[in-house]
Amino acid sequence: MPELYLEDFEIGQVFASGRLRVEQDDILRFATEFDPQAFHLDPEVARTTFFGGLAASGWHTAALTMRLLVESNFAPAGGIVGAGFDELIWPRPVRPGDELRVKSEILDARPSKSRPGQGMIKVRGITLNQNDQPVQRFVGNLVVRERPKGSN
Amino acid sequence: MPELYLEDFEIGQVFASGRLRVEQDDILRFATEFDPQAFHLDPEVARTTFFGGLAASGWHTAALTMRLLVESNFAPAGGIVGAGFDELIWPRPVRPGDELRVKSEILDARPSKSRPGQGMIKVRGITLNQNDQPVQRFVGNLVVRERPKGSN
Repeated sequence: MPELYLEDFEIGQVFASGRLRVEQDDILRFATEFDPQAFHLDPEVARTTFFGGLAASGWHTAALTMRLLVESNFAPAGGIVGAGFDELIWPRPVRPGDELRVKSEILDARPSKSRPGQGMIKVRGITLNQNDQPVQRFVGNLVVRERPKGSN
Repeated sequence: MPELYLEDFEIGQVFASGRLRVEQDDILRFATEFDPQAFHLDPEVARTTFFGGLAASGWHTAALTMRLLVESNFAPAGGIVGAGFDELIWPRPVRPGDELRVKSEILDARPSKSRPGQGMIKVRGITLNQNDQPVQRFVGNLVVRERPKGSN
C-alpha cells in the first residue's frame, strides 16, 4: 500500500475498505471484556431491551471500523493516528452475522501551525452493513506527515 | 447498584469509577485484533514513531473507559445506551502499566420530544491515568428511561 503524505490528500477524495463479518461469538467476547451489559451478552434477555435483540457494543463497531480502515487503501504516512472526533454516531446496532465495510472521504487537509513537517486531515467515515445501512458515522481529525523535503 | 431514571439525573451531578490497570499484553492483544499498527504492536518499532513508545489504541482506551463506566455508580435504568458523541479526544496515549479511572458529569437531561417514556442525557467523561493526566475526554448523548408512572 503506498503511503500518503499530507500533500497527497485533497478535499473530496474517497477511500473504500474491504469487508469483515461479525459473528455472535465475537460480539459476546468483546462485550464480556469491555461492555458487559445484557443487550450485548445474552440473546434472550436482549429481546426485552431497547435493542430488541443481541447488539454489538458501539465500541466494538468502532474497533471493527478501525480494523477495516487500517487494512484499506486509506494509508497515511506514519499510520492512522487519531487526534479526536467531532462526531461519532451509531444510527443502528451491528447484529450477529453482519458484514461491515467502511467508506471514507477527506473533508479537509492542512499543515500544522505549530508543528513543522506535520499536518491534520479531517475525515468523514461511514460504516455500512451488508444491506448498505449505516451502523456508524464519524468525523475524525488525524495527524499526518508532510512529505519529507527532497523526496517524491 | 440503584437504577437511575431520567428524573434522577440533574445538571452538575458527578460520578466516579473504580480503577483498571492495563498491561502490555492487553495492549498487544487489542491491537492485533482491531488496530494492527506498529506503534500499538511492537515496543521497539514504536520508539521511532509519533508515539515515542508502545501506546494503546485509542479505541482500546475508549473500550476500557466503557468497562469502567458500566461497573461504576453511573447506572441509567435500561443500561448505558450511547446514541452518539459530540466530542471524543485522546489528549495522550495509554501506556503499558497505566491504571485508568473515569470521572463523569451530567451536562443536560431532558425528555424525548418524539418518544414517550424516554429521554436523553448529555454526559462529559474524562478518563485519567494514575498520574491524573487525561487520556480521553468525551461528551456523549445517552438514551435514558423515564420513571414508570406510579413507581417511586
